[in-house]
Amino acid sequence: MKENNKLWGGRFSSSSAKLLEEFNTSLPFDKRLYKQDIKCSKAHAKMLEKCEIINTKEKDLIINGLETIESLIDSGEFKFCISDEDIHMAVEKKLIELIGDSGKKLHTARSRNDQVAVDFRLFVLEQNKYIRSLLINLIETLINISQSHTDTIMPGMTHLQHAQPVNFAFILCAYVNMFMRDIHRLEDSYKQNNYCPLGSAALAGTPYNTDRFYTARELGFASPTLNAMDSVSDRDFALDFLYSLSVIVMHISRFAEELVLWSSSEFAFITLSDSYSTGSSIMPQKKNPDIPELLRGKSGRVYGNLISLLTTLKGLPLAYNKDTQEDKECVFDSLDTIDISLRILNDMLKEITINKQNMENACKMGHLTATDLADFLVQAVKIPFREAHHIVGKVVAYAESCNKDLSELTEDELCKVDSKIPQEAHKVLDIYTSMNSRNSYGGTSTASTQAQIQSIIAWLEIHKIGL
Amino acid sequence: MKENNKLWGGRFSSSSAKLLEEFNTSLPFDKRLYKQDIKCSKAHAKMLEKCEIINTKEKDLIINGLETIESLIDSGEFKFCISDEDIHMAVEKKLIELIGDSGKKLHTARSRNDQVAVDFRLFVLEQNKYIRSLLINLIETLINISQSHTDTIMPGMTHLQHAQPVNFAFILCAYVNMFMRDIHRLEDSYKQNNYCPLGSAALAGTPYNTDRFYTARELGFASPTLNAMDSVSDRDFALDFLYSLSVIVMHISRFAEELVLWSSSEFAFITLSDSYSTGSSIMPQKKNPDIPELLRGKSGRVYGNLISLLTTLKGLPLAYNKDTQEDKECVFDSLDTIDISLRILNDMLKEITINKQNMENACKMGHLTATDLADFLVQAVKIPFREAHHIVGKVVAYAESCNKDLSELTEDELCKVDSKIPQEAHKVLDIYTSMNSRNSYGGTSTASTQAQIQSIIAWLEIHKIGL
Amino acid sequence: MKENNKLWGGRFSSSSAKLLEEFNTSLPFDKRLYKQDIKCSKAHAKMLEKCEIINTKEKDLIINGLETIESLIDSGEFKFCISDEDIHMAVEKKLIELIGDSGKKLHTARSRNDQVAVDFRLFVLEQNKYIRSLLINLIETLINISQSHTDTIMPGMTHLQHAQPVNFAFILCAYVNMFMRDIHRLEDSYKQNNYCPLGSAALAGTPYNTDRFYTARELGFASPTLNAMDSVSDRDFALDFLYSLSVIVMHISRFAEELVLWSSSEFAFITLSDSYSTGSSIMPQKKNPDIPELLRGKSGRVYGNLISLLTTLKGLPLAYNKDTQEDKECVFDSLDTIDISLRILNDMLKEITINKQNMENACKMGHLTATDLADFLVQAVKIPFREAHHIVGKVVAYAESCNKDLSELTEDELCKVDSKIPQEAHKVLDIYTSMNSRNSYGGTSTASTQAQIQSIIAWLEIHKIGL
Amino acid sequence: MKENNKLWGGRFSSSSAKLLEEFNTSLPFDKRLYKQDIKCSKAHAKMLEKCEIINTKEKDLIINGLETIESLIDSGEFKFCISDEDIHMAVEKKLIELIGDSGKKLHTARSRNDQVAVDFRLFVLEQNKYIRSLLINLIETLINISQSHTDTIMPGMTHLQHAQPVNFAFILCAYVNMFMRDIHRLEDSYKQNNYCPLGSAALAGTPYNTDRFYTARELGFASPTLNAMDSVSDRDFALDFLYSLSVIVMHISRFAEELVLWSSSEFAFITLSDSYSTGSSIMPQKKNPDIPELLRGKSGRVYGNLISLLTTLKGLPLAYNKDTQEDKECVFDSLDTIDISLRILNDMLKEITINKQNMENACKMGHLTATDLADFLVQAVKIPFREAHHIVGKVVAYAESCNKDLSELTEDELCKVDSKIPQEAHKVLDIYTSMNSRNSYGGTSTASTQAQIQSIIAWLEIHKIGL
Repeated sequence: MKENNKLWGGRFSSSSAKLLEEFNTSLPFDKRLYKQDIKCSKAHAKMLEKCEIINTKEKDLIINGLETIESLIDSGEFKFCISDEDIHMAVEKKLIELIGDSGKKLHTARSRNDQVAVDFRLFVLEQNKYIRSLLINLIETLINISQSHTDTIMPGMTHLQHAQPVNFAFILCAYVNMFMRDIHRLEDSYKQNNYCPLGSAALAGTPYNTDRFYTARELGFASPTLNAMDSVSDRDFALDFLYSLSVIVMHISRFAEELVLWSSSEFAFITLSDSYSTGSSIMPQKKNPDIPELLRGKSGRVYGNLISLLTTLKGLPLAYNKDTQEDKECVFDSLDTIDISLRILNDMLKEITINKQNMENACKMGHLTATDLADFLVQAVKIPFREAHHIVGKVVAYAESCNKDLSELTEDELCKVDSKIPQEAHKVLDIYTSMNSRNSYGGTSTASTQAQIQSIIAWLEIHKIGL
Repeated sequence: MKENNKLWGGRFSSSSAKLLEEFNTSLPFDKRLYKQDIKCSKAHAKMLEKCEIINTKEKDLIINGLETIESLIDSGEFKFCISDEDIHMAVEKKLIELIGDSGKKLHTARSRNDQVAVDFRLFVLEQNKYIRSLLINLIETLINISQSHTDTIMPGMTHLQHAQPVNFAFILCAYVNMFMRDIHRLEDSYKQNNYCPLGSAALAGTPYNTDRFYTARELGFASPTLNAMDSVSDRDFALDFLYSLSVIVMHISRFAEELVLWSSSEFAFITLSDSYSTGSSIMPQKKNPDIPELLRGKSGRVYGNLISLLTTLKGLPLAYNKDTQEDKECVFDSLDTIDISLRILNDMLKEITINKQNMENACKMGHLTATDLADFLVQAVKIPFREAHHIVGKVVAYAESCNKDLSELTEDELCKVDSKIPQEAHKVLDIYTSMNSRNSYGGTSTASTQAQIQSIIAWLEIHKIGL
Repeated sequence: MKENNKLWGGRFSSSSAKLLEEFNTSLPFDKRLYKQDIKCSKAHAKMLEKCEIINTKEKDLIINGLETIESLIDSGEFKFCISDEDIHMAVEKKLIELIGDSGKKLHTARSRNDQVAVDFRLFVLEQNKYIRSLLINLIETLINISQSHTDTIMPGMTHLQHAQPVNFAFILCAYVNMFMRDIHRLEDSYKQNNYCPLGSAALAGTPYNTDRFYTARELGFASPTLNAMDSVSDRDFALDFLYSLSVIVMHISRFAEELVLWSSSEFAFITLSDSYSTGSSIMPQKKNPDIPELLRGKSGRVYGNLISLLTTLKGLPLAYNKDTQEDKECVFDSLDTIDISLRILNDMLKEITINKQNMENACKMGHLTATDLADFLVQAVKIPFREAHHIVGKVVAYAESCNKDLSELTEDELCKVDSKIPQEAHKVLDIYTSMNSRNSYGGTSTASTQAQIQSIIAWLEIHKIGL
Repeated sequence: MKENNKLWGGRFSSSSAKLLEEFNTSLPFDKRLYKQDIKCSKAHAKMLEKCEIINTKEKDLIINGLETIESLIDSGEFKFCISDEDIHMAVEKKLIELIGDSGKKLHTARSRNDQVAVDFRLFVLEQNKYIRSLLINLIETLINISQSHTDTIMPGMTHLQHAQPVNFAFILCAYVNMFMRDIHRLEDSYKQNNYCPLGSAALAGTPYNTDRFYTARELGFASPTLNAMDSVSDRDFALDFLYSLSVIVMHISRFAEELVLWSSSEFAFITLSDSYSTGSSIMPQKKNPDIPELLRGKSGRVYGNLISLLTTLKGLPLAYNKDTQEDKECVFDSLDTIDISLRILNDMLKEITINKQNMENACKMGHLTATDLADFLVQAVKIPFREAHHIVGKVVAYAESCNKDLSELTEDELCKVDSKIPQEAHKVLDIYTSMNSRNSYGGTSTASTQAQIQSIIAWLEIHKIGL
């Protein structure tokens, strides 16, 4: 049977060998790990010397050679060759080219299986810190804004319906709490994965008399991993990171949805700065919240990357299998997505305009203080809630008949509707009074919100340590 | 509060504006659609002339300009500029640069919303055909191999346990059936998405007196889409493609798992050619099935991409939202993954060695023909199955006592175990007899398998049409 | 070492055997397939008689026995016993109990592997039709509403920003187009999976001289499947169904999001009937769109079920593996979710109130007809678009200065702003004129929308056939 | 237009109201939280008394009433009524029924939004501990087995190819390390989510003078949550749990794959006890590893549940939205799956037979000690690795020519192949010597494995605390 290649002849023309190389290689993406690879090789060389497996001269040659390679890659002079298969081979080949036979000794008492594990783990740990620092920055921005808006009143919503008056800072602090949890989650996964697999060799350890505690310490890990077979096949550290990033993007998507809503002409609570929205060359009135929309849409790829690695790892027997090579691109993509998303969100927030008047006006829709009036009647006039509820019903009806919000009624109007309503009742109709009455721990009153801000500021100081 | 940027200063240094551009632009990936973009613009220009919205001279200028741009991009001379935001703007700007004001008329009666929809849809339809052609090639390879192996006997497995003897071609045909369904699925989604959104404009159609049937025909679509608002926000065509690719990768992962198992020294049913496995510089005996492992591991990213777009589209109100810009990279990634996977699998299969002897030997483990003997006794000696089962039990015990497989017993041995067993019974113990007895439609007998192959060959002729 | 079971002693107390039975059994969920199981067994019995594998008397006994069992299950009198493992065993055991040895002959020339495949496939095909009928009902409801609202004007949105005036029916028709595609997708998957695996036996066919075409026809399938090994392990039909349901739920989630937005006091375009929203016993003004919110939230589980089965099937070698038992609960859950969701959505839509006045009022925000004015100037006064754009800019500024929308300006006001504006220009500012000007195929004009409705009605007649 | 309900009439017959109730209610699943609901209500009542919002008599009535309700539910006497909507309403209604007006005061200073949050969080925290206790049990079983198998030699694999000899305990310890990480992950998420949302009320806190620290302490939380709005919409604790369970199931799926492979007749390393495999009534020789297969297949649903909740939460604005009601079933399903999976795996492992002889025999395939010989030559004879490699190649060829494994050659044979090979070389060919030479930290030597076991036993003592 002849192959069906009329139409696609051109695309089929690449030779099998080339195709295979392209399929098999990880160099195009894992070269991103070159700094980690070199750092780990240096630590390994030092350990080999310390354990008298190589001599000092060899160690020095290796260290210098590796540093030369790092400079070459830094400056873009290093020629990557796809046939080198991966970053480890590319570096090692170059090392041997540079320093000769001593270079060949570097690969003693290790294998590519533990090498890729330690490089990638180190990378993920570093990026874990980096993402935390971005979250810290974002929280600081949110707190800066919050400090000026603890009495900027707006309708708090549940089910996208007006519920109770809250202040703008209180809402921002809700998002801050999410990002604080994100930092905690990253801190935990940092701690749990801070173990060094280097020295596990192919799968079973090594006959050489090595010192894995030395290498672990040298690279900043808490200690070496406990079991060689597990060490070369474990990718939990990458999964944990992908998961942490997924929760971050979920939080961002919620905030972004809110920003899109608030930017609509129906809400008009905020105005995005021109740079964070896109106009229309045709419709001069149009201003699209492109950036929040993109932030929201990015949730897809970050979730997808998590599922990607979970799927790849499903059902793999011990120890290393080539499937695991699929672990890196998903991490890089989620990392880069969250990196830019957090920075863009941070920048954008610094430039939003908060339309306080519109927020306040919105509080005058929906009789937000009806509950306050009923509660007041129960306590002040000692009537059952059911009767209070009935009276408030009448007041609401009256308000609507004259196109007013409950909060806009006068003392006289109140009394006219029902003589049981005392004059002092009027004060609870005020939306600010209502907001400030919710003064419980974690509540929305200005004082409570300010206290929350102080807690967060104190928290920040602790969680910046080590970043 | 001051920003926490000691450590990450370098990374933070890019200006907000640059970051924003980078975040917002789709040009780095959507330039892959330039041929589709130019093709659709040409069709649009012709329609505008036909409907007398532009004149012939303008049309000719536009067509020539677009063809020039296509050549420039083909040859790599076109300078893409990230600030152009997307491929549509990049092309249009260049067009105006080349031909002046006439270029500005091209964007009449369309918007970027319908433009990106039609470009991307056209791309997906073309790739749909391409992937089908790869599947056709793969099936042809499998059929070629099958034709020489309809009597290559091996143990058929369920639960990874020996069950009944089958032939190797029969197993390959099982995979062929999966890939045939994949082609059907792609054909269906081609047909369902073969509608042209061009002319839907921003979201509501256009006041110009256009002819959307003309453009649809010109671009090879069955007809225009029915509702403008749906047309600019619909991405079902991309989802359908991502899903079809997910099922393909699932089928590949199953085949790949089988190839990994068959290559193990425990099974040793096949030997991969050296180019499709990786040796070890240290362990000369080692030959790793890297390529099948990678094929298996790729399932993760393709599943992930499907979830990615499903997530992005969840809960988006009408009509176009910027979130939708996230639709392309996942499609490109899944497409490229399946493209190379199918070609690699095809190439690799052409070079596998089938260890017929090992396969046959494996059939002599597990008394695969015990059922055949029991069935025979029921029919020939007219004893109930339960009694037959008991007799066979004794025979199996005898065989094990002399370290033989059931299929290796002689006529005399059989009679010795139980006198009820007639001499003819011996023939049903033969593994080939057993295999060929399963001659029902779709069964594993050589004849049935050959008939399956003929059906598939006939099917192929029909499904190659139009590729 | 002693087990740590102080705290959880109670929970650990169930014996291993019981636990195992509970883990292994599929009866609690697969009993849902009893009608399919009995139907397929009846067809199988008839075929066995036709092929002279059993005699007529045996066939009749079997058929009667199966019908008795069906009645017992229908009426709830059948005692399911978890130790029967699955519905197939439960029915067969009962059959033998009822009719004796003849019952044992039913399982000739088949195995549980093909039996579960045919039962489940039949179930999925039936439910495929059922879901299509629900979609048909929903489309009919949407078309009924649409017919009264082809001139109910409202702002068409992109990026949740006012873009151009459209009519309400036009938006509903956008959703109808999504649901039409859903029906097409189901129809295709019905057709592709309409093949009968019964008779494939354990994995390799059967030595009996069976007639698989007979059984296939008897059960309404297009024909038998082609390869026995594929037949017992194929679950593409279930995946295709899960995918189709995932796209449906995505479409529902978009519509639901829109309904939530439209019900907010900011939009107030619709009012849900009281039964489809939930009030608050405390806040009398509150009315939460619980039902649309739940509809939106259901997307999670349906996506999850798709990923569930894709994951389970990844990397399974041929043929049947027990993992596949995980195929049913995800299908049942997605099916039930979409079943109730489509019915609830349908019922809810019949009772929504459309606040036409609010919709129209909203069109008077955002100068929706600015583009129309610019277009008019280009065509009528023959000035370049750029100049027209500038003039419109001035008009918009004037309108805002007197707190009017562009569409509310008088002829005189227009001329006053710029003398180049002719009196006729005034008419293009009208939002209805604007909407009706978009009269292209698929556009939003009342006429075009009415034509779309007619197309859909014609389409419905064809796609109801066979349901 | 008339509804298309011929065929499905029966199914459509349920009234809209009933359908709606069924769709809206969470009672059928959230009644599982009744103990948590009652516990939290009791704590709330005590706090209300302490803060003098209710008096002691009322508090006592409430506490007694709640305890009565708990007994009723415990004993199955409580009548759940679907119209009660959820467990909170069901309990409260009953309370009022039992104790009258005092019952109505319980709902002071809280709302269902914070109530469901605290109930569900408490449930997840408790189950977090429970799953940890199951993991502890499983680890103990694995360690028990390991202690007898630190010198049970078997081929260590990478890429499913024989690599180096390891011991069975070493492989089990690899899995133990995975389960240890699972415990760490659960501990972290316990700690991070150990905050009490009760008292956040609807979304903004409460005007009552409450003491949230009291309730938090009473319920065993570390402290109250910081922001009310976040508290009622946060479901990170459920996500974290779903993620932890997903990693557990991934680890289980890897182990299960290994068990399936080891049970195949090709490997035959272990034999599952009869209760954990399923025979065939037809093929007496067949023994299917159903339980490990199911364990592997369960990964799908647990991954699916994670994606389910991630999807549901995507893009939800603050604060509570009804979509969130979808948070429970996915958690219950993953929890129950992991619960039974861990127990079944534990029970099954206690009964596996380890076929030491087969494992050892398998080490005599593949010249596992080739590397050891080469390494020895480098060190003892001081020849370069390249030359050593060449010599070993010759030895391997010789071994194959006489159908022996490298490890089976005699001293004389070695010297005959190449005179450079000293007599002592022979000892490194031994597979036990090879295994025990890998004595580095975490390596596979018997001594190193025993040390690992001791570490794990010490670790267990610490991590059992508090369970």
